[in-house]
Amino acid sequence: MKKYIELSLEVQEAKASGQAVVALESTIISHGMPYPQNVKMAREVEQIVRDNGAVPATIAIIDGKIKIGLTDEELEIFGKSPNVAKVSRRDLAQIIATKQLGATTVATTMICAELADIKVFVTGGIGGVHKGAETTMDISADLEELAQTDVAVICAGAKSILDLALTLEYLETKGVPVIGYGTECLPAFYTRESEHKLNFFTDSVDVIAETLKTKWELNLKGGAVITNPIPVEYAMDQDYINGIIDQAIREAEENHIVGKDSTPFLLGKIKELTGGKSLDANIELVKHNAKVGTQIAVSFNEKLSDNKLRV
Amino acid sequence: MKKYIELSLEVQEAKASGQAVVALESTIISHGMPYPQNVKMAREVEQIVRDNGAVPATIAIIDGKIKIGLTDEELEIFGKSPNVAKVSRRDLAQIIATKQLGATTVATTMICAELADIKVFVTGGIGGVHKGAETTMDISADLEELAQTDVAVICAGAKSILDLALTLEYLETKGVPVIGYGTECLPAFYTRESEHKLNFFTDSVDVIAETLKTKWELNLKGGAVITNPIPVEYAMDQDYINGIIDQAIREAEENHIVGKDSTPFLLGKIKELTGGKSLDANIELVKHNAKVGTQIAVSFNEKLSDNKLRV
Amino acid sequence: MKKYIELSLEVQEAKASGQAVVALESTIISHGMPYPQNVKMAREVEQIVRDNGAVPATIAIIDGKIKIGLTDEELEIFGKSPNVAKVSRRDLAQIIATKQLGATTVATTMICAELADIKVFVTGGIGGVHKGAETTMDISADLEELAQTDVAVICAGAKSILDLALTLEYLETKGVPVIGYGTECLPAFYTRESEHKLNFFTDSVDVIAETLKTKWELNLKGGAVITNPIPVEYAMDQDYINGIIDQAIREAEENHIVGKDSTPFLLGKIKELTGGKSLDANIELVKHNAKVGTQIAVSFNEKLSDNKLRV
Ligand SMILES: [Mn+2]
Ligand SMILES: [Mn+2]
Ligand SMILES: [Mn+2]
Repeated sequence: MKKYIELSLEVQEAKASGQAVVALESTIISHGMPYPQNVKMAREVEQIVRDNGAVPATIAIIDGKIKIGLTDEELEIFGKSPNVAKVSRRDLAQIIATKQLGATTVATTMICAELADIKVFVTGGIGGVHKGAETTMDISADLEELAQTDVAVICAGAKSILDLALTLEYLETKGVPVIGYGTECLPAFYTRESEHKLNFFTDSVDVIAETLKTKWELNLKGGAVITNPIPVEYAMDQDYINGIIDQAIREAEENHIVGKDSTPFLLGKIKELTGGKSLDANIELVKHNAKVGTQIAVSFNEKLSDNKLRV
Repeated sequence: MKKYIELSLEVQEAKASGQAVVALESTIISHGMPYPQNVKMAREVEQIVRDNGAVPATIAIIDGKIKIGLTDEELEIFGKSPNVAKVSRRDLAQIIATKQLGATTVATTMICAELADIKVFVTGGIGGVHKGAETTMDISADLEELAQTDVAVICAGAKSILDLALTLEYLETKGVPVIGYGTECLPAFYTRESEHKLNFFTDSVDVIAETLKTKWELNLKGGAVITNPIPVEYAMDQDYINGIIDQAIREAEENHIVGKDSTPFLLGKIKELTGGKSLDANIELVKHNAKVGTQIAVSFNEKLSDNKLRV
Repeated sequence: MKKYIELSLEVQEAKASGQAVVALESTIISHGMPYPQNVKMAREVEQIVRDNGAVPATIAIIDGKIKIGLTDEELEIFGKSPNVAKVSRRDLAQIIATKQLGATTVATTMICAELADIKVFVTGGIGGVHKGAETTMDISADLEELAQTDVAVICAGAKSILDLALTLEYLETKGVPVIGYGTECLPAFYTRESEHKLNFFTDSVDVIAETLKTKWELNLKGGAVITNPIPVEYAMDQDYINGIIDQAIREAEENHIVGKDSTPFLLGKIKELTGGKSLDANIELVKHNAKVGTQIAVSFNEKLSDNKLRV
């Protein structure tokens, strides 16, 4: 397995010295935002991780290898190239075997982080149960990954184009903890609130880190979703953004945009309809997640050093 | 992992001497029945296990530990305290990490039993697919647990407030054996019969024990549901109880009772509408399950001693 | 575990000499086709595997053992006996423990192949999400098996009586690769084409073998579906066969044929309505799958010998 994995120098050094490492995904760069904002965001997020005491590891597939930590040149490639495949679990082996450029989603970033023994991963929003999934069965592979792969995902909730109630039900059935950090309800990406109450919330990164440690020491396989609301100053009005999301979904339906093309289309349309404000919000929430996620990673890492994982 | 688990003296001695141990859940005490009937039932059930040749291990979370076997004082606490959390898989690590009082559901009792190497667990009824789950996706975590955790659950079928046909489909998709003990159809908790035929039924606890042993020796992960109908003298008339269940479900809908509050509300309402007879039935079916489950545990244990699990 | 598994002499010799082995299922013999065509088909398929450089291992349950490779006499028994149980994952332990005759489905052939360390399995079509499963939850255990058991299945697509769109969604959620061999769309068993585009297709058995090797070396658990369209000369007209399938489904509904009886009923009815042509098509597509599957198995086996699986 090791032959497929290549750590950046910075990540190698962090691991050698026992420093915390935070995983970051590459689909948000290649498919989630336009150039050059995507690359700028990626670099700022990496710097936020460093400023808070950990080392960033942006993950991507290049030339038959899983890269754990990208160079500046590699970040540029993922920001610009039109030939980057969006790689979910089902695609991962093929993209590696055929040496294509591949951007990792939430699911595959979790897989690769676990392969590299990185336990905390920061992103914008997870995938979930799509609206209408009662009849289409369109459910993101991210949810199955959360049920089986031991990586915590810090996000601003599930992407708001999803059915949040069904996403929470699915995660409950699968036994995945959904933790509110500084919120008693599930944040809805562009907004700080939703009608969905959480049954576990805390203002302490230390409690979150202790819960993760307990979970994995007990061999309770799978990840956790740690939801961190978008900063107040970038949060959108709920009625305003929900109206726009509904319109974007209608246009996707009219244009028969489905499957893995759906999310990029909707995000593009929402950006257009908000005059670019959704993109600003998206960037700011990721940066905020990077700060909180790094604090969790550092706290988790200290607990491990104090008291090595016992099995 | 061991540091989180604490066996009672009785369970320690049983394990040291090679005696069979039977797991029991605590949610049935804290959330399933009123005080003092719940504690009385728990003690009687424990005694039935002893009388049939095994040692009972009621499971609960106390002060950061998974307790395998409770003292009389601890049983009282779970019977009376209003501050006991109902702990499903997603909640387990948090309740342990934050040292709260937690009662284990079917899913978490299975998890904790497996951690303590106990293979047989007696309860009233398992969770399942809720009525209306085609659109709500409200499906108990118990079903996923049965698909992955190597513990056999002896019960009187799925709780009758559930959609039994969909519950059976889900278990079939997940590859979970559903065995009828002394019945060719799935019992429906308060009644001995339902319209759902089983494809595996037997009158022999030995055949059940041999099947469990074969399953786990083949590394076929997951549990099994062993359904044991309520004793004839306590069984209710099907039309009578189904009418009451339908009424309780309507009242839950009218009062917007959903999620984990739903089951306790429905059971309370059914008790009220049957003038307490549903509670008597519930207690008697658990006692009957304890007897049959202990027989299975003893038979399984003998097979293991004859012929240690080979991998 | 070994005590339950019995390899035929031919399979033992293949394994000793490092030759590739191809798994074959027995339900297609006992429940999928009438006698004597079923036994004739089974022998021809085994010979095609040999002619292409591997050794066939038809899998079945006999007298408490998992047989990996059947004798001619055993093939006859499975072709003729009315007492063969159709064994899915939930039934496997019971059929072995009670020493019944059992025919393995796609799911259980995968399980048994993995137990015997055979990685490539040739069949006609996999199970999937049934039409109407949005409300019935009737979903084949084959799909869950593909998500967890490391065996590649070469087939002509999912059985055409299924909902192909929902089957693909389910497999995507579960992270199972669906690979088109010589086709860019999912073949629909009796026809070479469907409206469902695949996102991974190739004309090279070597690329498929390399992908499988990469997948399992990365510990990405689960199988893969390799879809190989029915040969042109046996393919049916899409409108013709779909009309017949719809009629068969209507008759099944009218006769209340459900659950595991459904597939044999539908295949029998389709055979009747096509005047036997569907049976010829079925036999020819299996033979074609045997040829392609064996090429994949041989290529995979060579890669392993060059470069032993590293973990
Ligand atoms: Mn999808
Ligand atoms: Mn629920
Ligand atoms: Mn089914």
